[in-house]
Amino acid sequence: MNRKQTSDPNLDRILSGIKKGDSASLARAITLAESRRGDHQAKFRELLEHLPIATPSIRIGITGLPGAGKSTFIEALGQEILKEDHRIAVLTIDPSSPLHKGSILGDKTRMPRLSADPRVFIRPSPSSGFLGGISATTYDVIQLCESAGFDVILIESVGIGQSEMTISSVSDLLILLLISGAGDELQGIKSGVLEVADLVAVNKAEGEQRRAAELTLNEYQMAFGLRATTASSPNRLTALCSALTGEGIAEIWTQIKSRILESNESGEFQTRRNQQKIQLLEEAVRKNLEIAFKEDPKVQKGLEQAIQELSKEDSSIEELAYRIVDSFRRD
Amino acid sequence: MNRKQTSDPNLDRILSGIKKGDSASLARAITLAESRRGDHQAKFRELLEHLPIATPSIRIGITGLPGAGKSTFIEALGQEILKEDHRIAVLTIDPSSPLHKGSILGDKTRMPRLSADPRVFIRPSPSSGFLGGISATTYDVIQLCESAGFDVILIESVGIGQSEMTISSVSDLLILLLISGAGDELQGIKSGVLEVADLVAVNKAEGEQRRAAELTLNEYQMAFGLRATTASSPNRLTALCSALTGEGIAEIWTQIKSRILESNESGEFQTRRNQQKIQLLEEAVRKNLEIAFKEDPKVQKGLEQAIQELSKEDSSIEELAYRIVDSFRRD
Repeated sequence: MNRKQTSDPNLDRILSGIKKGDSASLARAITLAESRRGDHQAKFRELLEHLPIATPSIRIGITGLPGAGKSTFIEALGQEILKEDHRIAVLTIDPSSPLHKGSILGDKTRMPRLSADPRVFIRPSPSSGFLGGISATTYDVIQLCESAGFDVILIESVGIGQSEMTISSVSDLLILLLISGAGDELQGIKSGVLEVADLVAVNKAEGEQRRAAELTLNEYQMAFGLRATTASSPNRLTALCSALTGEGIAEIWTQIKSRILESNESGEFQTRRNQQKIQLLEEAVRKNLEIAFKEDPKVQKGLEQAIQELSKEDSSIEELAYRIVDSFRRD
Repeated sequence: MNRKQTSDPNLDRILSGIKKGDSASLARAITLAESRRGDHQAKFRELLEHLPIATPSIRIGITGLPGAGKSTFIEALGQEILKEDHRIAVLTIDPSSPLHKGSILGDKTRMPRLSADPRVFIRPSPSSGFLGGISATTYDVIQLCESAGFDVILIESVGIGQSEMTISSVSDLLILLLISGAGDELQGIKSGVLEVADLVAVNKAEGEQRRAAELTLNEYQMAFGLRATTASSPNRLTALCSALTGEGIAEIWTQIKSRILESNESGEFQTRRNQQKIQLLEEAVRKNLEIAFKEDPKVQKGLEQAIQELSKEDSSIEELAYRIVDSFRRD
């Protein structure tokens, strides 16, 4: 590890940029990590071998349905974090738009103060691929950010479907952002997230909505037994906040820091990261399998031929599919 | 195709059962189709080769959020269909429980009259696999049902996430079931389904809710321009119904039949099925790749070794994943 030079002067330039914490170099490295091309992935693996030792970091996941105020919350929490000596990377995962690379302009507009701060790096999510692998890619991006000296990683995602598992497999601490009045059935979708959330915060507790927010928080505390404490599993953190006015945000940052401190001391922090690695390995395997398969010339030719054969009356999709996969294995 | 005998007397028994329309044999064949074991899939491919010619069929997808009344609707529509000379297979896809095989007891309780009818076959969905392939498996199951003489296939699925694409890739006609008062944001999740739905029905148009149901239908008609008609794409069908009282169900069945007749005459019916086959091929390839990969002894061994290596400080998930996939290709 950390041999002097790579096989490619471009990689060397990216690496020395990352060592200096340069955002443009970081962005170029991320583009390699996110690419679904085999040659890009090979370069990325070479880059990984030469990466500087990562800064010790905190990885915080933030999830919640559209309308919960995630961007405003990140903007407010980010300001709080920047009062201390930190550099922040904000990564957003948008499962609803698998076909494009996310909207960086959108993210920058949604977080104007963080976007303008040189200590902050904002990057939208990789798109989802043919067979998946989003968690693995997100983890790669996190590693790159940490190597470039970012020590607080905020990972934002809509809490619907697969993204909740993605975010929980890369976070040291997962925040679920709720609001009052979003309807029971609606928030019921998120029960999977509720199970893995470390901190449940009811946002928009401002003005006339404050009382309703308190009631909502109370309901969740009761419904999910959040108040129960056992020695082995610390009780879930809960909070009220208004990302808009900033109320409650400093308290949330304090809660986050002490929870991380506790879990560091108990060893839980490292245990969790180690367990995540196993999950991420499976995801990375999936991604690599996808790339190898899609780039195989026999597979490409087999698919074209199969599509021709499909129009025949007695063609069997199963038989055609089996033959394509079989050809992939006979290199 | 249709050679006299297979290599396995069990398969021969299943085949002769299917030819007689026997539900137990059909169920055994479906179990083979749904299995993620390579040897079961090989047997299933052999079975496919010997299947009797399928009955011409109508495949109707029914989707809608939990609470829209899908089971009651299917129960009511099923009664209507059975007034004519049909045999019905009801397949349910439940994306929210990928870990178990669905609850057949649940389905039977939810559709008591259909469950008790010898002309009806009810089967819950296959579970989702490591890399997907649900559509391909659903298609296999549909083919089996058609070979066993079921000529109306009702495929039910919650309209969240991937399942809406699954259901649209195997249906000749897709019904979206809505209710009034479910909240804008909630039903907004389903915009992907709205685009592919052929018939939009507002259910629970009974008693005091009737007026609200009418308004909801009206809103959807306006919002999505459902009333617009062009020569090339027929206007989307819309309906009000009460699955509970049965009101509007006969009309929906009539609408379905005339739409299918139209699309048969225009050739659209066959074109749609041919296009679906291409989509399904990709899914079937994915499923076969998953099975081949998971069953490969080198992959299994590589995964075990990689998990050991993960605990080392300088291990790279990407490098380990790459090596496992690489070993799979070097047979």
